[in-house]
Amino acid sequence: MKLGMARGEVCLRLSVILFLVLTTCLVAFDTQTKVVFLGIQKKATYNDLDALKMLVYVTSAAAGYNLLQLCKHSTCSRGNLKGSDMCVAWISLFLDQIAAYITFGTNTASVGASMIAVKGSEAFQWLKVCDKFTRFCIQIGGAFLCGYVASILMALISTISAYRVFRMYSPKWFLRLKST
Amino acid sequence: MKLGMARGEVCLRLSVILFLVLTTCLVAFDTQTKVVFLGIQKKATYNDLDALKMLVYVTSAAAGYNLLQLCKHSTCSRGNLKGSDMCVAWISLFLDQIAAYITFGTNTASVGASMIAVKGSEAFQWLKVCDKFTRFCIQIGGAFLCGYVASILMALISTISAYRVFRMYSPKWFLRLKST
Repeated sequence: MKLGMARGEVCLRLSVILFLVLTTCLVAFDTQTKVVFLGIQKKATYNDLDALKMLVYVTSAAAGYNLLQLCKHSTCSRGNLKGSDMCVAWISLFLDQIAAYITFGTNTASVGASMIAVKGSEAFQWLKVCDKFTRFCIQIGGAFLCGYVASILMALISTISAYRVFRMYSPKWFLRLKST
Repeated sequence: MKLGMARGEVCLRLSVILFLVLTTCLVAFDTQTKVVFLGIQKKATYNDLDALKMLVYVTSAAAGYNLLQLCKHSTCSRGNLKGSDMCVAWISLFLDQIAAYITFGTNTASVGASMIAVKGSEAFQWLKVCDKFTRFCIQIGGAFLCGYVASILMALISTISAYRVFRMYSPKWFLRLKST
C-alpha cells in the first residue's frame, strides 16, 4: 500500500511536470504579427506583458523543482519515516506548499493582467488588444488552463505530503510522535 | 494542550478576519480625484479595475467564512475526533484549503493587474496611471500587503486543519484510522 501511494505520487509529479512544460511552451512560443497602422507591423510576444514573462520563469522553475523531487523519490523513499527522514518530509511538505501557492499565484496574476488585454479599461483609456491578436490570446488562454491543472495537481501533492508527515503524530498529544 | 491548539486557531482566525476586513476597507474606500485635462476631473475608485472589484468581493466572503468557522468552533470542538466529527474535519480542511488558495490567488491577480497601472505597457500603448493617482496607488499597495498577511495566516490555518485530520490515521496502513 505504501508502494501504491509512492507510485501514485510519482504519476502525479510526472503529470505536473508535463502540464508545467506545456504551459511554458504555449506561452513562450506564442507570437502573432499584425499590420497595425499604414503598413507598420506589430509582433505580439510574451515579452510584452511582465506577468507572462514571470509565468514562463515560474512554471519552468516549478517543473525543475518537481523533477528534483522525483529524483529524490527514486533514491531514498523506502520504509517507514524516522528521525532525519522526518526532517526531510517536513522540508518536502514546506517546499511543496510554497511551490503550489507560487505556481497558482503567478498563473492567477497573469490571468488578472490578461483580463485587461481582453476587456480593456475605459477609465484608464487602455485599449483592448485581443480583438487584434485573437489567435495569440486564445493560445495564452490554453496555457492558463494547463497552468491551473498543474496548480490543482500540486495542491493535491502538497496534501499528500501533509498526510505523510502528520500521520506520524500522536492523536492525543500535541506534536508528539507516535510510538509504533 | 488540545485547548491550547484550539485557542491558537481562534487567535489565528481572528487575525485573519481583521486583516481581510482591513484589505476590503482599504480598497473599497480608496478614492482620489484629479484634474486630468482642461478642468475635466477624473475620480479613481476600485470600480475602475475589475481585479480590484473581485478582490473586495473575495476578501469579504473569506472574512465571512472565517467568522462562520469561529462560530462552529465555539459550539462543537470539544474532545477527540470520531465518526461524524472526522467528516466535519475533512470538510473543514477542504474548505480551508480552497479559501486560502482563492484569497491568495485573487490578491495576486490584483497585484498582476495593478502592476500595469504602475509600469504601463509600451507595446500595447497602455499609459501609467500611478504617477497621476499616487496616493490612490499607495493605499491599494497597503491593501495588498494586508491581503498577503491574511493569505499566509490562512495557509497556516489550513496546515493546522490538515494536522488535525491526518494525525488520526495509522502511520503503517494507508488511510486506516488508528485504534487509540
